[in-house]
Amino acid sequence: MVDIATRVYNHHWKIDPIVRSLIDTDFYKLLMCQSVFRNRPDTQVTFSLINRTTSIPLADLVDEGELREQLDHIRTLSLTRGESTWLRGNMFYGKRQMFRPDFVEWFETLRLPPYHLERVGDQYELTFEGSWPEVMMWEIPALAVLMELRSRAVLNNMDKFELQVLYARAMTKLWQKVETLRAVDGLKIADFGTRRRHSFLWQDWCVQAMTEGLGEKFVGTSNCLIAKNRDLEAIGTNAHELPMVYAALAESDEELAEAPYKVLADWHEEHEGNLRIILPDTFGTEGFLENAPDWLAGWTGIRVDSGDPVEGAETAIEWWKSRGEDPREKMVIFSDGLDAEKIVELQKQFAGRVRPSFGWGTLLTNDFRGLTPNDSLAPFSLVCKAVAAEGKPTVKLSDNPNKAMGPAEEVERYKRVFHVGKQVAREVVV
Amino acid sequence: MVDIATRVYNHHWKIDPIVRSLIDTDFYKLLMCQSVFRNRPDTQVTFSLINRTTSIPLADLVDEGELREQLDHIRTLSLTRGESTWLRGNMFYGKRQMFRPDFVEWFETLRLPPYHLERVGDQYELTFEGSWPEVMMWEIPALAVLMELRSRAVLNNMDKFELQVLYARAMTKLWQKVETLRAVDGLKIADFGTRRRHSFLWQDWCVQAMTEGLGEKFVGTSNCLIAKNRDLEAIGTNAHELPMVYAALAESDEELAEAPYKVLADWHEEHEGNLRIILPDTFGTEGFLENAPDWLAGWTGIRVDSGDPVEGAETAIEWWKSRGEDPREKMVIFSDGLDAEKIVELQKQFAGRVRPSFGWGTLLTNDFRGLTPNDSLAPFSLVCKAVAAEGKPTVKLSDNPNKAMGPAEEVERYKRVFHVGKQVAREVVV
Repeated sequence: MVDIATRVYNHHWKIDPIVRSLIDTDFYKLLMCQSVFRNRPDTQVTFSLINRTTSIPLADLVDEGELREQLDHIRTLSLTRGESTWLRGNMFYGKRQMFRPDFVEWFETLRLPPYHLERVGDQYELTFEGSWPEVMMWEIPALAVLMELRSRAVLNNMDKFELQVLYARAMTKLWQKVETLRAVDGLKIADFGTRRRHSFLWQDWCVQAMTEGLGEKFVGTSNCLIAKNRDLEAIGTNAHELPMVYAALAESDEELAEAPYKVLADWHEEHEGNLRIILPDTFGTEGFLENAPDWLAGWTGIRVDSGDPVEGAETAIEWWKSRGEDPREKMVIFSDGLDAEKIVELQKQFAGRVRPSFGWGTLLTNDFRGLTPNDSLAPFSLVCKAVAAEGKPTVKLSDNPNKAMGPAEEVERYKRVFHVGKQVAREVVV
Repeated sequence: MVDIATRVYNHHWKIDPIVRSLIDTDFYKLLMCQSVFRNRPDTQVTFSLINRTTSIPLADLVDEGELREQLDHIRTLSLTRGESTWLRGNMFYGKRQMFRPDFVEWFETLRLPPYHLERVGDQYELTFEGSWPEVMMWEIPALAVLMELRSRAVLNNMDKFELQVLYARAMTKLWQKVETLRAVDGLKIADFGTRRRHSFLWQDWCVQAMTEGLGEKFVGTSNCLIAKNRDLEAIGTNAHELPMVYAALAESDEELAEAPYKVLADWHEEHEGNLRIILPDTFGTEGFLENAPDWLAGWTGIRVDSGDPVEGAETAIEWWKSRGEDPREKMVIFSDGLDAEKIVELQKQFAGRVRPSFGWGTLLTNDFRGLTPNDSLAPFSLVCKAVAAEGKPTVKLSDNPNKAMGPAEEVERYKRVFHVGKQVAREVVV
């Protein structure tokens, strides 16, 4: 029987929106947004989309009109009553009222600011300018829209049967990974795959697969909407954008050297426990840890997001030891380019020595590699970054020079200030 | 949106019927039924279910009440107007009115006769007695019901998510086979998988996969209902039951020796072209061909359904040559325990030497091997055979002694009459 009402209802949609909620975003964006709203509400920033996989001609694949429709639709979204209730009433990381009433009130009135879209060659230039707390909320939806429009462009050429087989294969592939992970004792893993997801529906399915397959080992998802709908923990802490913007605002080399610690000092005041996670690689992990104040060694853990993950974890272990801390009590969150085999390996290597934990992104929610001819659905490396603050360019050095960004002379200056020596380049898979 | 009407409609079903149509059966049953209706309408026969895979405790797995409900439901079925129209009006093997009006009129009034069901140990004894044209129509639905009830018994213990992953895996597995077959030049293949199918819906999906994936290489399905619904060719000719019953009715060794040729003489009068396919292995291929009349060498082809398929085809080639026929014009239909790799191999070996063709059964419509713990959905070897005619036991020798049936002393007599020497036993996979 055809459900005529559903069919007719679907006719009403001018578009099939990719992002249908302002909380279809990563939890750490909300945490960071609250911090920015509190500490730097008036800072003017520019965010910009960067396709690191230049072999993917995004502007040829994705229709500009469709892209505008999707972005325009996001600008019509506002926090719903239920979403607001969830933010106000939910317990996050064991704590009630993590979001303060003044922040939620502001969030309730938020509409995302205008965007600037231009085609340049076979890529899009997509930028967002305005006050930091508003502009930063564009990052995840902008990425999700471009990733999914690219998926849709490929899927449009497939017939109903090919689609069915495609998703059967993708499910089989993911479930194979889940079964690999299920066998790992003591595993703690979360979904970090919103930004690079194949599609919203697919991410939602992946999260269900993790829930069903891993039970307690699956600790939650970074996606607030899915966490809310599926009654899961929302997971996340903070990201590179905080030290990058703080650093860009520094007015001297001395202030610059202090900027990454200033970020965490603000965070220290606001959060405790599992939210006190150091992200040390923005301007090079080694120098960051060497010069870190002692109170930072007391934090709960560290996130390893670039460079060789084993090296990153070993560096952290040495650092904790040198500061009189017991690494076995520390959390190490691996979150860079993970896949099931790598996760198994890292867990084996570090369980017992630290408390390992995993934030699994692209290859959880978008591993369509090998499933279509010419790998036309393989994920690619798209980011949306703060590129300027108050007119000054931002810089990221990372532990992998292939992930670095910023004007060359600024990069040199940062390297000097943060004592970054020779770095080993690693392929950015996703 | 929930479609309330559909949900409520589904409530109405006391059971979810497995067989919903009298033409949800193999095409060759209808052809044979017409032949029997014409030549031996009053012969009394007994058909019996035989589970050759005794390690599967069918009576423990399948609830007797559910089994009776399904069988009772089949007894309520009659030919619908649309089905009758399809039989009367359709072109089969390029010929209109293959089914004669008197047969279709009889078929329109047909209700399947009573069944006898008894639990013996961990197996069911399920038998059907009555006039041959009526009883023979039980074979395929009885098999389909037991196969699917066993599937359902296993599926009942799985949750919604496990089911989704199971079918994703099964689809992936089948599609892999389709891709293997797609690469084979000149392939001609049909679905012969009704009797051992995992379920009706799954067979229907498999047929769609073959249609989509193989195009012209997929020549049709043995399932009349699916052929009708999906506008495909209905495929099939005849089976062992004809010579088995004719042989059982023989009143002397001389008549017995003639019985298999008598069957084909009747068939010769009724059919031409692609329906003139010899099934030579009922009482041993070698003796059958040696003693065959010359007009049989003029038939279109042969079906190899037991024993080593290469040997079977080579035997046929030699036989055609010895009778002055050109094997390159002859069709060889392989239909025993096939899977994709075997099909590729046989096609390579025989293309050009004969016209190879494939009837793919169990491992097309029920290859759930390796998809559940303990292989609880692996297919098994269930048959439903004519075991007696006019009170006399039937015998099958086959080219594989593991597929033989009948009382020991009768088997010995048949071996003597048909000059069957030493046979090589081969594992009956499915």
